[in-house]
Amino acid sequence: MYPRKLIGLIVVFLLVAPGVRAQTKTLAERRGYPADAKLLIVHADDLAVAHSVDAASFDALDKGGVTSASIMVPCPWLKEVAAYAKDHPNADLGLHLTLTSEWKTYRWGSVESKDKVSSLLDPSGYLWPETGPAAQNIKAEEAEREIRAQIERAIAAGIHPTHLDSHMGVLFSRPDLFAAYVKVAHDYHLPFLAVRVADERAKLLSLLSGKDPIVDSIVMANPSVQAGQWKESYENAVKNLKPGLSEMIVHLGHDDAELQAVTIDHPDFGSAWRQRDYDFVTSPDFKKMLEENHVILVKWRDFK
Amino acid sequence: MYPRKLIGLIVVFLLVAPGVRAQTKTLAERRGYPADAKLLIVHADDLAVAHSVDAASFDALDKGGVTSASIMVPCPWLKEVAAYAKDHPNADLGLHLTLTSEWKTYRWGSVESKDKVSSLLDPSGYLWPETGPAAQNIKAEEAEREIRAQIERAIAAGIHPTHLDSHMGVLFSRPDLFAAYVKVAHDYHLPFLAVRVADERAKLLSLLSGKDPIVDSIVMANPSVQAGQWKESYENAVKNLKPGLSEMIVHLGHDDAELQAVTIDHPDFGSAWRQRDYDFVTSPDFKKMLEENHVILVKWRDFK
Repeated sequence: MYPRKLIGLIVVFLLVAPGVRAQTKTLAERRGYPADAKLLIVHADDLAVAHSVDAASFDALDKGGVTSASIMVPCPWLKEVAAYAKDHPNADLGLHLTLTSEWKTYRWGSVESKDKVSSLLDPSGYLWPETGPAAQNIKAEEAEREIRAQIERAIAAGIHPTHLDSHMGVLFSRPDLFAAYVKVAHDYHLPFLAVRVADERAKLLSLLSGKDPIVDSIVMANPSVQAGQWKESYENAVKNLKPGLSEMIVHLGHDDAELQAVTIDHPDFGSAWRQRDYDFVTSPDFKKMLEENHVILVKWRDFK
Repeated sequence: MYPRKLIGLIVVFLLVAPGVRAQTKTLAERRGYPADAKLLIVHADDLAVAHSVDAASFDALDKGGVTSASIMVPCPWLKEVAAYAKDHPNADLGLHLTLTSEWKTYRWGSVESKDKVSSLLDPSGYLWPETGPAAQNIKAEEAEREIRAQIERAIAAGIHPTHLDSHMGVLFSRPDLFAAYVKVAHDYHLPFLAVRVADERAKLLSLLSGKDPIVDSIVMANPSVQAGQWKESYENAVKNLKPGLSEMIVHLGHDDAELQAVTIDHPDFGSAWRQRDYDFVTSPDFKKMLEENHVILVKWRDFK
């Protein structure tokens, strides 16, 4: 833990001096864990997109199957999540800043007035359906305007967000969009998802302050994983977790009529996929493999 | 049926002259039915509001349980209805012009840019939740702007609307809103729901042209009807249908997890209600009672 500024100059001196040394400590050490601890946030994406996703995610949060989740503010079910947040003030809920509307027969638009963010909208008036056209068309200043509007709408709905991240990675897709994301996160004093990378994108991390946590690795199911290998794939990932902070990103839902219709013609991240993720994170097997591999579960709130 | 203008002045003369006499004919006679025919549109409201509502309504349209339906353009499932409309070009689909967003945990906003229709939005940025505050706050020129935007979005989505009506009757709640509705309907050459009334609202009907159909009576379930009396209540209504044009307005859905969540805390027009309406209109009993009472089913397209 960082010491806090309490009184006078001596304390400020003490704050700065250990602060310099603290930079050499690991994220885990700075939070009181062993230097080589394996910290893991288990994170459910896409809350508010559909009732089926909300119901499954609330259940997984309640059961401790996930530690954190994030909310898609422009989606129709925001008030359902706000009601849950009100009833569960300790739930670790962030905002899944949303600049895409990716399903075929079920769409949403911007929170900000359309004429102020026209570059964010496709010809139908909804947010772009894919990261590609979004990254090609979006003006960074309009993205910033929209994500501020999303944060303000969430706060107005009674949500106290614990962190920010980016739906479909749109805000990680261009340096100016990433800069807007970091700037807004800093303005609201919110931790945000930023991942340690080895390629040229690493230079973007220079925008971070020394206090911003960096996630060392992401675990997420991908379309190459066969349905029958779901648990095995996650088990391998848990066994291979390295010391540091990792985030396991899951997409939860019940494989029902609503979610099948939302994800129609799109098996990747589809209805059956989300049921598999839900079944996995709420299973005793998952809890057991975390224990056997000495994984310490943490939340975004721990980094606020 | 009206004769059509085919060639030259003589035909025009013939068209106009019987037209004058036609004003004394009933709506039924003008369409080739006996003067005392009981014409009935069986109409499903609220398409696009939820997948459950769409699935039940499409099924009822396919089975002939309803003859017509109308679509809530600002709602998230518009593209699902557009896909159905494309595959069913003869389906009689109008627009359920929407100026309210009435559910507790599931909301939608305007189609038009928010800052151009700010009087239509509640403090959360969604359409007003009830007809009361909508009627108190809405500026007529902004309502007109919004309903034009809804029609344009539907057309852009590939829908060819057969008629217009008004969700929760907001456009019937003030003379200036009704005037905007009639004006827009005339501009788009679309028939629209207007009901013959005996009270002071009757003077609003002076805005109609001589060709606009007037619905003589509406049949709709209401909260005073007990669940066990559903069929009996409709049966009484069918037996009591008078000669002229009536519309039976039904609200269809499957009583499933999605619809229960959409309609939470709101049994009126809720999930079980919509299941009862669906069960009724798709039942052989309904077909039989229409036949026994010599009811002629018609569609909005017949009045275009």
